[in-house]
Amino acid sequence: MSVINVAILGFGTVGEGVYRTIQSHSNELAAELGKEVEVAAVLVRNKQKPRDISGNVLLTTDFEEILQLPKLDVVIECIVDKDPTFSYLKKAIQRGCHIITANKEMFAHHGNELIELAEQHQVSVGFEATVAGGIPVIQTLGQLLKINRVQRILGILNGTSNFILTEMRDKRQSFAESLLRAQENGYAEADPTNDVEGYDAFYKTMILSRLAFGEEPDWRDVERVGITSITSELIEAAQNLGLRFKHIASIWKSGTRIQASVKPVLVGSEHPFYHVEGVENAVNVKSDIVGEITLQGPGAGMYPTASAIIEDLVHVCQSHVPKSNYLKTSGEDIELKNEHQREYWLVQGLVQKYGSPAITLVDEISEGIFVLKGSKKDIEQLAQRQPSVQYFSILGNEEFLVRGIEEAKAL
Amino acid sequence: MSVINVAILGFGTVGEGVYRTIQSHSNELAAELGKEVEVAAVLVRNKQKPRDISGNVLLTTDFEEILQLPKLDVVIECIVDKDPTFSYLKKAIQRGCHIITANKEMFAHHGNELIELAEQHQVSVGFEATVAGGIPVIQTLGQLLKINRVQRILGILNGTSNFILTEMRDKRQSFAESLLRAQENGYAEADPTNDVEGYDAFYKTMILSRLAFGEEPDWRDVERVGITSITSELIEAAQNLGLRFKHIASIWKSGTRIQASVKPVLVGSEHPFYHVEGVENAVNVKSDIVGEITLQGPGAGMYPTASAIIEDLVHVCQSHVPKSNYLKTSGEDIELKNEHQREYWLVQGLVQKYGSPAITLVDEISEGIFVLKGSKKDIEQLAQRQPSVQYFSILGNEEFLVRGIEEAKAL
Repeated sequence: MSVINVAILGFGTVGEGVYRTIQSHSNELAAELGKEVEVAAVLVRNKQKPRDISGNVLLTTDFEEILQLPKLDVVIECIVDKDPTFSYLKKAIQRGCHIITANKEMFAHHGNELIELAEQHQVSVGFEATVAGGIPVIQTLGQLLKINRVQRILGILNGTSNFILTEMRDKRQSFAESLLRAQENGYAEADPTNDVEGYDAFYKTMILSRLAFGEEPDWRDVERVGITSITSELIEAAQNLGLRFKHIASIWKSGTRIQASVKPVLVGSEHPFYHVEGVENAVNVKSDIVGEITLQGPGAGMYPTASAIIEDLVHVCQSHVPKSNYLKTSGEDIELKNEHQREYWLVQGLVQKYGSPAITLVDEISEGIFVLKGSKKDIEQLAQRQPSVQYFSILGNEEFLVRGIEEAKAL
Repeated sequence: MSVINVAILGFGTVGEGVYRTIQSHSNELAAELGKEVEVAAVLVRNKQKPRDISGNVLLTTDFEEILQLPKLDVVIECIVDKDPTFSYLKKAIQRGCHIITANKEMFAHHGNELIELAEQHQVSVGFEATVAGGIPVIQTLGQLLKINRVQRILGILNGTSNFILTEMRDKRQSFAESLLRAQENGYAEADPTNDVEGYDAFYKTMILSRLAFGEEPDWRDVERVGITSITSELIEAAQNLGLRFKHIASIWKSGTRIQASVKPVLVGSEHPFYHVEGVENAVNVKSDIVGEITLQGPGAGMYPTASAIIEDLVHVCQSHVPKSNYLKTSGEDIELKNEHQREYWLVQGLVQKYGSPAITLVDEISEGIFVLKGSKKDIEQLAQRQPSVQYFSILGNEEFLVRGIEEAKAL
């Protein structure tokens, strides 16, 4: 049986998961591909560190050594940093290798360039693992919804933030305590900025935007808010209304423009994200033929991410036409979101009355925390005049919210 | 631009949805396929009935006329009955056409035969629309999880049953009232047997079983229970415990045997199916690499079903190798479910004590409705001795259930 030679760049959690899965699922891979998959090389930072890697595998700290292997078909990149991974993958493509990456930051910055280069060199690019871990959202958008025109995407894309918000509510802990717990569980880095300030979700959002709409918004126009300002007090006030904070990425088309935001939003129990808890991720896709589909599953971890990469390995090896859907052009203008439309908001930190006659007080939920109704524009202006104001959009239907307010009052 | 000629068999809700979607998405189809898709013929029962179909389309009541068209590439079957659709599709394959079907009963009976015949004739079979409407579960199992070994599938596969259970709980209506409402809304047939007795879900379960495990259980061994015995009283007792009745299809491997059941089960709010309400469907797939993934979306309706068929149309036209995953062999024996393992049950209709020392009373929830703990075997024996007993498995973790019981007592 002929062989597919693979190099794995990086041997952290994800790289090791990929290595182990290639061993444990060698029969499935051979049956599907008609060829044996062999790990030819692993790129590491420190060759001395003891690792459970077969002696036949080239273990090296020098990527050039990998490039010079006589036979190499696929390069799988499991490194976190943006550089030098981009240059590694460019060289791999130029050598005629398919590439697979789990690196969202690098891919958000350089995905287009890599895909164009891959088309020139007749190889494929797999990037399922960059968004939502083991949930096959990239393939669902790229392969299963080819005729549906995507209208809007919502996503819980950062498991760390979702874990912290869940812990804060469930265990009545502060943000700091919950962050510590996330770090103890290995869900958050020592420096958690990327996760809790929304950068990680932002990169994933840009990748999804390009895949679903063929383009992305100007990065500077995207509202990116993390979860660091969510206090126990806010969480409790929301809970009394039957609402939960979720850190939600949204992508939609307004006129001819793609718009996106990544920020804490409130959802009620009728929303498919209400029960997405802990480190789970979820993506809700609204398309013009099928309507709304929600995919939910593990957003990170050794084996969920390895799953995405191993399934990508099959796809890149089987794709007869090395054409990517990543650059497909978007359909017609679909959803015209009206910024003058009145919505509900949870608002804290008002130092004086809401100021605009267009903003209505719905209720004071607890001391200093209000539900207001008004357009996005009006609320933004309010926050400009009163910089102490924090405001959070409440998704879902009015009936649910009104019921929640009544029940909160009855307590 | 060359043309893909399509025939649509049946012009009910689904057939009309497919026809309209081919018109409305002709640009997307042409861009994806590089060919124009044209509806060459529609098979109807009554040619006189006025329909919004272009004059260029052959409208006929005679399938042979369609078979004799000089050019025909794909036959899309949107008829409900098992016969004569099977013979139509066999003839279409023998003529060299790809086929696509939405007919779960026919496909559960004859899917294997059609797929084998299609392989002989080098054409493809699309059957995404047979299970879970617009949710791309067939393609996810067949195309996106090729290396993952499926261990267990759970599904809410019948929208009518789920709608009725939701209405009963939400509106505090009887089964009969909720069924009537389902009929008024067009969610249930005049004769609802297929839906409310679990036959529809059963056929879908067999299709999923074959796709995920390469085989299906002996049909006679599958426990198939509908929702007709679920009373308002049971629903209320469950709700007081924080539980909801869902009509759930389960497929798992026990030793080397595939087992399946289709029946009402209780789930708590931590379960991904708890919030699947109304006519929505959901499928939860547990695989060995990725873990659990849940797909949720519209399980029926004109456009969700048309979406599944249109996306299948792209797949059958693009598949270079007319190989189907339907017959793939299953992985190793994975989940050994122990029938002696003690679980929780909601039980009604006990005429005497539970009889077996192996069965423990957890609590009497309301008059005559108990939560018991015992193995499946013990509960089945109890029900054999006391035929008035109805029992329902409670999914989920113990902690949730205990909390639910405490809260119910506090009311």
